Amino acid sequence: MSEYIDQNRDSVSVGVVKKKVFTFAAPPDEMMLESGAKLGPITIAYETYGKLNADKSNVILVAHALTGDAHVAGYYSEDDTKPGWWDIMVGPGKGIDTDKYFIICSNILGSCMGTTGPSSINPDTGKPYGLKFPVVTIGDMVNVQKALVDHLGIEKILSVIGGSVGGMQVLEWCIRYPDMVVSGIPLATTMRHSALAIAFNEVARQSIVADPNWNNGDYYSGEKPALGLSVARMIGHITYLSDESMRMKFGRRLQDKEVFSFNFDADFQVESYLRHQGAKFVERFDANSFLYITKAADYFDLQQQYGGTSVAAFSKTKAKFLVASFTSDWLYPTYQSKKMVKAMKKNGLDVSFCEIDAEWGHDAFLLPSERLTKLQKGFLERVYNER
Amino acid sequence: MSEYIDQNRDSVSVGVVKKKVFTFAAPPDEMMLESGAKLGPITIAYETYGKLNADKSNVILVAHALTGDAHVAGYYSEDDTKPGWWDIMVGPGKGIDTDKYFIICSNILGSCMGTTGPSSINPDTGKPYGLKFPVVTIGDMVNVQKALVDHLGIEKILSVIGGSVGGMQVLEWCIRYPDMVVSGIPLATTMRHSALAIAFNEVARQSIVADPNWNNGDYYSGEKPALGLSVARMIGHITYLSDESMRMKFGRRLQDKEVFSFNFDADFQVESYLRHQGAKFVERFDANSFLYITKAADYFDLQQQYGGTSVAAFSKTKAKFLVASFTSDWLYPTYQSKKMVKAMKKNGLDVSFCEIDAEWGHDAFLLPSERLTKLQKGFLERVYNER
Repeated sequence: MSEYIDQNRDSVSVGVVKKKVFTFAAPPDEMMLESGAKLGPITIAYETYGKLNADKSNVILVAHALTGDAHVAGYYSEDDTKPGWWDIMVGPGKGIDTDKYFIICSNILGSCMGTTGPSSINPDTGKPYGLKFPVVTIGDMVNVQKALVDHLGIEKILSVIGGSVGGMQVLEWCIRYPDMVVSGIPLATTMRHSALAIAFNEVARQSIVADPNWNNGDYYSGEKPALGLSVARMIGHITYLSDESMRMKFGRRLQDKEVFSFNFDADFQVESYLRHQGAKFVERFDANSFLYITKAADYFDLQQQYGGTSVAAFSKTKAKFLVASFTSDWLYPTYQSKKMVKAMKKNGLDVSFCEIDAEWGHDAFLLPSERLTKLQKGFLERVYNER
Repeated sequence: MSEYIDQNRDSVSVGVVKKKVFTFAAPPDEMMLESGAKLGPITIAYETYGKLNADKSNVILVAHALTGDAHVAGYYSEDDTKPGWWDIMVGPGKGIDTDKYFIICSNILGSCMGTTGPSSINPDTGKPYGLKFPVVTIGDMVNVQKALVDHLGIEKILSVIGGSVGGMQVLEWCIRYPDMVVSGIPLATTMRHSALAIAFNEVARQSIVADPNWNNGDYYSGEKPALGLSVARMIGHITYLSDESMRMKFGRRLQDKEVFSFNFDADFQVESYLRHQGAKFVERFDANSFLYITKAADYFDLQQQYGGTSVAAFSKTKAKFLVASFTSDWLYPTYQSKKMVKAMKKNGLDVSFCEIDAEWGHDAFLLPSERLTKLQKGFLERVYNER
């Protein structure tokens, strides 16, 4: 899609894009999951940007994080004012340049944005799966993406790029399909989910499960567990920010008042912000999907899964890597990226690493960063030229 | 009380102690709160250890944290196996030596461990206050303690000591009653509650409020909001630990299993631990008290309350200070203690500061630390000798 500038939207963009779907693994050819369970049919929602070149050597796969979707860039209509979640990075001339590359992003397995998940219809019952949906892993998500890529007739991926849970998918891609992936850019992520990260996910899950409307996952025909999911999102939001960013963004400023209320209203802007984030989230996200995807993240442990050490995990990988962490990210702190880089290097892999100075916490990978833009752009050019 | 060694309990202890109560502010002499509301009668539960000396110069006031109580040290009976919450620090020959000092600890206003709070009977209705209980502040808590100290005929306090929310009380004491307090030991605390700390408290409160059993605070004759309070406690627990301490304590170890369950049971030890902590907490603590005390902590801001700057806040204080922070405490990080120390020093106060190397996060102030024990012991000896 050619360059598109909309003055109202005030940004260079890929313009109007469309969500597509691909369905596979229909019975009796269900997909085998890592748990041993079978799942099918599976629908995968995806979007593409830019043009596939003649030798199909310009393919980039973007993997989204926990609550993201396939809509990385552009708008769904001329009137749409909300761009895709990484529009600042993906577009004409941007860090991931749609003038040069063919970019694919798909919604992850277990989510609720078009790809099969717990809110999808269970063909066995004609009703939403709920907790009958099998627990999936990051590896399962990647295998579903692989089916899509195969379907699109693509044999080589120039780069798999993603942050957070998206970064986990990047790592799985590079390990599972070493002959297919030329490079990977795992951002703000980890090789193994830490006890701290598991703890936050577990508390968020418990908050959902504690909501009587959750009803053991069976709520699609009634009231949704909105309050529980809202608290879960609030917990998540704290972990995406940082002490410093919250001090700068909110400090102790009061919300629409001059003095304390001396009741349990939201006195502080930070309270008001969190309540708003929680309330907004329940309109767009499914509580069960939140349970499944956080569980997949908690299970993520390359070391345990591939040979017992982090070095062994990367032993079959051939990809070149650009690894980036962010100084104020305390969910997946820099030391975890450094450990990853060390394991890659011990395998003789071509690895660039950068710790980006950023005060915005884990969220930093999604925010405008000239540094990250330049790093990705340069890295992609290099791997494209070296291909 | 003389030295007491119980072989079963395997520790030097103050031995068997008793909780006492003092009631004051009966109508029409209610206490005026900072909010402008009046409250009375007020009962304060307290314990004392050691002996008051002839010139009443050996009084130490220990202030407890969020969910603590008056039971700092010793046991309630010969068979009791659970010592007070700071028994490692308070006892014969210990950091706060009951052979030398007369120690008082009282349960804070708004709590549920014997001092008047939202679960107490509202004399106007004959039923528990619930949300009719006025929102209280750290200053109000200190004023209630002052009434107790007056009642005990004590005019001078050698030291006020406390960590976390207890540390806030220490600071309020030194500012409010400069002629009464010889020294203060604020541990793992802050002069003003940060946006991050408010955020965690707010999410915990929202978790309680989301529980339908909470019923707008009116649940004392029915089901308690156990699930909501449990999640609130789990959130708190994460903030008391640290990335490092959780990695050491739990890592990614599984609980009673060898492989993942592929369901939503607690797979990891850290999940199991948090669930256990949550469940245990609801047996001993009142959900409304949790709301009130966290709100008091969120309101805590010496700078805003006393003259607009942190330096102004300490301008009337005469106390000598020992300030201690802990390296892995990310709830009240060291930079906040340093700012406090700077403000004290700018007022020409006698301040000792120590950042204690500890991996256990915010909780470190409650855990055995030879460093902290020696520091407190030495500091108390000095201020006692210099009195």
